[in-house]
Amino acid sequence: MTIKSVNVEIITIGDEILIGQIVDTNSAWMAKELNIAGFELAQITSVHDDAQHIIDTLELALKRADIVLFTGGIGPTKDDITKQTLCKYFDTKLIFNESVFQNIERLFVNRPNAMNELNRLQAMVPENCMVIQNAVGTAPITWFEKNGKVIISMPGVPYEMKNAMNLEIIPRLQKQFETPVLLHKTVQVYGFPESALALKIADWENELPSNIKLAYLPNSGIVKLRLSGLSDNALELEIAITQQLELLSDILGNAIVAYEDIPLEQVIGKLLLAKGIMLATAESCTGGNIAHLLTTIPGSSEFFKGSVVAYSNQIKENLLGVNHEDIENEGAVSKIVAEQMAMGARKLLKSDVAIATTGIAGPTGGTAEKPVGTIWISVCYEEKTLTKIYHFGANREQNIQRATQAAFLLVKEII
Amino acid sequence: MTIKSVNVEIITIGDEILIGQIVDTNSAWMAKELNIAGFELAQITSVHDDAQHIIDTLELALKRADIVLFTGGIGPTKDDITKQTLCKYFDTKLIFNESVFQNIERLFVNRPNAMNELNRLQAMVPENCMVIQNAVGTAPITWFEKNGKVIISMPGVPYEMKNAMNLEIIPRLQKQFETPVLLHKTVQVYGFPESALALKIADWENELPSNIKLAYLPNSGIVKLRLSGLSDNALELEIAITQQLELLSDILGNAIVAYEDIPLEQVIGKLLLAKGIMLATAESCTGGNIAHLLTTIPGSSEFFKGSVVAYSNQIKENLLGVNHEDIENEGAVSKIVAEQMAMGARKLLKSDVAIATTGIAGPTGGTAEKPVGTIWISVCYEEKTLTKIYHFGANREQNIQRATQAAFLLVKEII
Repeated sequence: MTIKSVNVEIITIGDEILIGQIVDTNSAWMAKELNIAGFELAQITSVHDDAQHIIDTLELALKRADIVLFTGGIGPTKDDITKQTLCKYFDTKLIFNESVFQNIERLFVNRPNAMNELNRLQAMVPENCMVIQNAVGTAPITWFEKNGKVIISMPGVPYEMKNAMNLEIIPRLQKQFETPVLLHKTVQVYGFPESALALKIADWENELPSNIKLAYLPNSGIVKLRLSGLSDNALELEIAITQQLELLSDILGNAIVAYEDIPLEQVIGKLLLAKGIMLATAESCTGGNIAHLLTTIPGSSEFFKGSVVAYSNQIKENLLGVNHEDIENEGAVSKIVAEQMAMGARKLLKSDVAIATTGIAGPTGGTAEKPVGTIWISVCYEEKTLTKIYHFGANREQNIQRATQAAFLLVKEII
Repeated sequence: MTIKSVNVEIITIGDEILIGQIVDTNSAWMAKELNIAGFELAQITSVHDDAQHIIDTLELALKRADIVLFTGGIGPTKDDITKQTLCKYFDTKLIFNESVFQNIERLFVNRPNAMNELNRLQAMVPENCMVIQNAVGTAPITWFEKNGKVIISMPGVPYEMKNAMNLEIIPRLQKQFETPVLLHKTVQVYGFPESALALKIADWENELPSNIKLAYLPNSGIVKLRLSGLSDNALELEIAITQQLELLSDILGNAIVAYEDIPLEQVIGKLLLAKGIMLATAESCTGGNIAHLLTTIPGSSEFFKGSVVAYSNQIKENLLGVNHEDIENEGAVSKIVAEQMAMGARKLLKSDVAIATTGIAGPTGGTAEKPVGTIWISVCYEEKTLTKIYHFGANREQNIQRATQAAFLLVKEII
């Protein structure tokens, strides 16, 4: 069995990544799509809008990779230089492209502003490349070839890049290159620190076949275990990985909370949908994050009723029916208030199951008795109520995220 | 005036980035902090857990940079090889470090699981490096020097990396290297596409001093303009950039929605706080995202009352008092329903100003008359109400984000 992987590298161009103004979400998205299509992403490199550095990076990438994908640096403004730089590297000149011009004109039909000279300049493209139309933006995509290798320059605007990748670039690359089967399967494990989990599954890990690799990915109380396999036979690989997952399932049992690499809200959404259960939330310290994550799921109205974000005690009392005296005596961050919020939300929003969160997200508001990171979460379903206290850390954002994850796990436990 | 920048490169190690399982948020955070501290981040490179590729990448980085920062690949499990690889590169061996061992023991005092042999192995460190304790995790930080250059290896776990960077690494690097002043200022402009904005400010841009650079960063209807300056005199640079911003302000006026690079929710939060106004939201299509973003801000209870996420019509009617007949006649996605939701939320949640959103986020649920992306947003404040219809695109996540941004801008307009 000979398996030759097709190596891809991504080069992202733009000062905004290197000064931390934006997070490079494009590369992760591209990595996932390339992987599914059977390509191996070997390196991601981010460099400034600097001609020499761009060329040096490209030359190094071409020594290693079969395909180099550029994103960014092709907007209409002065700071963008990728097009000119590639023109120089490929020793060619910019020429006017009529069909790119028509595409830009078409895009401006629905825009309030008129087309201007900078947009017209976007129709100038390198002479010795193949031009791919950008269906949703004014910057054209350019495809170069050199010694059997492919170099493509795309916009950095995420939806323009994604549109081009899905509709044009990946299908064309799949035609041009023969790729092996790459398969990843992930299970999510709850309740073990990374090192304890590693010991628990050590024997299993040592017996893995040589073409299947294991990786550990800890994240907010959950450890993801990822099995990656490479083969020229898709079915055999699928069977081999599935067998390993079955063995793993025997060892870990209920500690596996999902057999897919999907966010917990999707795990919960699927579960609710399958059981025909409607959920509602009453959120204090999580501030709507649970509702927000659930409603990112298409069709979430099938399992999600709504939410009361009860940031003030007034709302906890008036809408959710929390007892005024209990807040006075026990404080808003207490077991009894969490429980009353959950029961109140379930009744008010007419749901089957309800989540309530109340805690001190921080950075201020903590006391000696209830330091920042103290969070009560209650979930009620039919006659059952599950209420737990958590002690997270000092970081507000992390406390909100961890409380959200914990709430989803409580829902999984109760239904 | 001679300004010599201190160049830094980041190398992130780990398959999870290159198969798109996680987004590399560490690098953006590090980039921002390094920048503030006066260092120039020249390149970010992501590579697999592969010893040869790691060493090649390090050698190339050392040709260009003064400082190389590694993140990732130093966990207790088998797939992590950064420590061993650096050991090999620096031609040294692993030795047991007593203080690292004590640090690991200390961390396990508060953990439910006992320390195990894999954790003990984490106390093995390269002999010829300086060890920096990881105050919040078991993997030590290692600091190597070679020909006046510094190479540091850190954990990939974000809060461990951030803790080490803030408390140890950046202060030590600042002591060891003399850095020039790097200053970035960003304004956020609403209402212009990138190319139209570029033409409007072309004369101003052409007159910028040579040590101040301009960059355009378009994002969900807003274009950020970033001025970056390099100098050996902090005060002179601050004045020069401020003068340019004043000139820009004369040209763009109210189109500038913020003079800082902060998210819109923070712009709105500050404004509400300054005016002593309390906000509430009634969210249908945004599903709690507006509440979520506002409550990521520390102290948001000073300006945010709470929210009703009204995903079902039942909740719109029962809680927010939307007229049943109006939903029947006009549909839930309509001007009149948006307005009633806003007014209902303002009354129910006892706030001064209320935002309501109702629309078709997609991907399904669209009709010929109201396609996916059709969203009504209403904001009411005292006797005023501002209600607008938006036509965004087909992407659910993007529709939620763009509606959220649009809602913040309406609040800015009305108060």
